[in-house]
Amino acid sequence: MRVKRFDLVRVKDSEAYKDSDFVAVEEPLNIRTCFEKCEDFAIIMRTPGDDKELSLGFLYSEGVINSIHDVEDIKQVENNVIEVKLNKPIGIRIRELIVNSSCGVCGRAFLYTLNILKSDLKVKREVIFSFPEKLREKQSVFNISGGLHATALFNPQGELLFIYEDVGRHNAVDKVVGRLLLEDKIPASNYIMQVSGRLGYEIVSKGIKAGIPIICGISAPTSLAIEIAEEAGLTLIGFLRGKSLNIYTHSERIY
Amino acid sequence: MRVKRFDLVRVKDSEAYKDSDFVAVEEPLNIRTCFEKCEDFAIIMRTPGDDKELSLGFLYSEGVINSIHDVEDIKQVENNVIEVKLNKPIGIRIRELIVNSSCGVCGRAFLYTLNILKSDLKVKREVIFSFPEKLREKQSVFNISGGLHATALFNPQGELLFIYEDVGRHNAVDKVVGRLLLEDKIPASNYIMQVSGRLGYEIVSKGIKAGIPIICGISAPTSLAIEIAEEAGLTLIGFLRGKSLNIYTHSERIY
Repeated sequence: MRVKRFDLVRVKDSEAYKDSDFVAVEEPLNIRTCFEKCEDFAIIMRTPGDDKELSLGFLYSEGVINSIHDVEDIKQVENNVIEVKLNKPIGIRIRELIVNSSCGVCGRAFLYTLNILKSDLKVKREVIFSFPEKLREKQSVFNISGGLHATALFNPQGELLFIYEDVGRHNAVDKVVGRLLLEDKIPASNYIMQVSGRLGYEIVSKGIKAGIPIICGISAPTSLAIEIAEEAGLTLIGFLRGKSLNIYTHSERIY
Repeated sequence: MRVKRFDLVRVKDSEAYKDSDFVAVEEPLNIRTCFEKCEDFAIIMRTPGDDKELSLGFLYSEGVINSIHDVEDIKQVENNVIEVKLNKPIGIRIRELIVNSSCGVCGRAFLYTLNILKSDLKVKREVIFSFPEKLREKQSVFNISGGLHATALFNPQGELLFIYEDVGRHNAVDKVVGRLLLEDKIPASNYIMQVSGRLGYEIVSKGIKAGIPIICGISAPTSLAIEIAEEAGLTLIGFLRGKSLNIYTHSERIY
């Protein structure tokens, strides 16, 4: 299943109504390598459906296999578990392997403990509508290179407090969190975070960990981002463009 | 330095001319943690400029620090090396830490050995111009969810051979590489790869490893992607939109 339908609240100008829409599925895949015995190799957040290709390509990129002839068999033993039987032991020390994980949260997918957000923050929709334009005005490097993601922090009055840019989306979020740490403002229960990229598991879990109760983006969320937002009590807003936005979870904070 | 100027060849319809443009800088940052002695913690690909915030936010997201009070000092000892002095030992086993790297290539940035591409492939610009439209036609899930990246493989005649989608850009590329492995077609010296997202170090290095001589994207490349493309002999094309594109490296393959 590559897409899944989620309930949401669509806000357009002064209207708001319940609806549903399709969202890309994001789920962890446990890739196990087998030689004599099977061992966990990595856990990758991915969209299900081509796990055989993904596992092979991943093992190749990581330098574990050099061709299909190094592989004896591939078996999807569960929905989210695949075993790749090799005809030789993996010739890389575990540390090198793991370090090189090709995704943001490899191997730790289940290790995050979600904190539950405690925040009475409520924000006017008009304030939220204003974020993308304010972000664009400040985005210095993006304007000339077209290559950077930005993450900004706003207060409930809609003032942009600070903005960070990076080639990596997760880095831009980490920079915001770092700034909050420097100012000793975590849990950041009275702020809203706006990101320029997609809303995946990793971005949203970093925001939750920092105690931020509302995360907005101009693009789509993933299924797992919605699921953890729901559970943690986070308000997740996507497709924030012009005077419209989708609220995927905890819409009670927006009025 | 967050942006850097690179030479390129601009192709617009039937014209082509030399020019230059700004590109977002991508460089590895070695984050070291110190308690009694300093140790490498992770290497992150990032845009330089806010390394203090990035290191703090990263260590917080990884669960190494819980507030700024866990940190005694932060020192940028070199351009790309930062040392964070902690007032207690890191309470996480190395394996857990490393697995959780918040970027695609953490810790392995310098471990990739670039292979030099051997390919006489030459492709008409008109063929390249046709890729984005062909990708869009086939992109099944993106159309209804707006949340997926796609990577496709083309032959020099412009036929789309296969396409994979994923919430993670690097996964979509790994799936293409996995398919090439299954068909025993690596090194894939006679194919062109088209990606829907940005052209960063990780995407480009995966393509080089698979022996693909031309990589195209509709968006911007990073500085490091251009630098490794130049070195490996890869033709890197960005901002492929309508009848225009930028060739950043090895433009001799496009006519």
